Amino acid sequence: MKKTYEGKTKDVFELDNGNVMLKFKDDCTGKDGVFDPGENAVGLTIDGIGKANLETSVHFFEILKDAGVKTHYVSADVDNATMEVLPAKVFGKGLEVICRLVATGSFIRRYGSLIEDGTELPGGLVECTLKDDDNGDPLITKDALVALNVMSAAQYDSLKEQTLKITQIVADDLKSKGLKLYDIKFEFGYNNDEVILIDEIASGNMRVYKDGKIVEPVDLTNFILEK
Amino acid sequence: MKKTYEGKTKDVFELDNGNVMLKFKDDCTGKDGVFDPGENAVGLTIDGIGKANLETSVHFFEILKDAGVKTHYVSADVDNATMEVLPAKVFGKGLEVICRLVATGSFIRRYGSLIEDGTELPGGLVECTLKDDDNGDPLITKDALVALNVMSAAQYDSLKEQTLKITQIVADDLKSKGLKLYDIKFEFGYNNDEVILIDEIASGNMRVYKDGKIVEPVDLTNFILEK
Repeated sequence: MKKTYEGKTKDVFELDNGNVMLKFKDDCTGKDGVFDPGENAVGLTIDGIGKANLETSVHFFEILKDAGVKTHYVSADVDNATMEVLPAKVFGKGLEVICRLVATGSFIRRYGSLIEDGTELPGGLVECTLKDDDNGDPLITKDALVALNVMSAAQYDSLKEQTLKITQIVADDLKSKGLKLYDIKFEFGYNNDEVILIDEIASGNMRVYKDGKIVEPVDLTNFILEK
Repeated sequence: MKKTYEGKTKDVFELDNGNVMLKFKDDCTGKDGVFDPGENAVGLTIDGIGKANLETSVHFFEILKDAGVKTHYVSADVDNATMEVLPAKVFGKGLEVICRLVATGSFIRRYGSLIEDGTELPGGLVECTLKDDDNGDPLITKDALVALNVMSAAQYDSLKEQTLKITQIVADDLKSKGLKLYDIKFEFGYNNDEVILIDEIASGNMRVYKDGKIVEPVDLTNFILEK
């Protein structure tokens, strides 16, 4: 098994069957020893967080599979913190896709002159940012993605449609646990031109509230997995 | 005649016929006494620049009228530095619409990891930014403009189509004078739901090159007006 990439929170291996294996690590992004999913640098290690993120991801990927949404997910071995996935290429040098159900965070920092923090965004709003730490992960429009040859207009439309659908499925699952999804971050890739959800769906990728208070990622994992 | 707004570079008056009069001033945006159309604060006064910007605007508005593109322009009195225009509401608290034919400036600061400075963007790329000095005039997508009720999807499509067409007309005129348009900034408004170009089309709103070197706004005005 050949390691093809060493990431901040996951290592990537090539499998003999043509698929890819992701190994979830206990390294987290954060700063000064405090876990912060929004940070770009690895700031600390939390025992067992790799497995917890994998379990959370498997929970959602299985729900998506049942709902007929194809993703890169094939199978998982939670004990070894590994997930087998379809091979996929990332768009450009990597793209983050955010779906917002409630306006908050960086959206308010940008557009607070026009909308109150906490306003619902009915149906959800999809935004893309480039993975580019040095430039503060800049927002990018559909037209710019197409002009920069990052993706085709049809690929963008597929990505947006899937993002809205997947977000609704995740939000519904969280709602059944008394949790309210504010926003969620995804990564998409393409496999033979087909756009599919890749990476993970873990607590660090979403902003969730319970009874009007934000739920920290470690607590959120426990709520999601009903532990 | 009632003054309804005092802007950085123009004052706005209500006319008895229901139209609006813009008075072009000699105040320019800039910093430390240096003219910089990208600056938000008024930094200096240049004798005659109000009239020069009006003449330049009239030059382009007349070309657009001849090409069948409706704008807010009605007529002008260059000696008095005034322009009569249709009344129009701005989108949100004001929106800047940029059309890029060549990737440079803030586009490269955002997306330089994916594209070289100076790369042509065939057909042109339209971007919108909010007029919000305190937040650095943030980029905003079509979907966010619709979600924030700044405009409808149909209004955005009209704005984008008009921007591409107007930019091509301006670029063609500049090309006939040996000048190359890199990018240009517009402001649109709506008059009875119809989206129309408003404000001015002056040298400070565009980035233009001649023989591979950028042309400063004052020189550009002279080139455009063939003075």
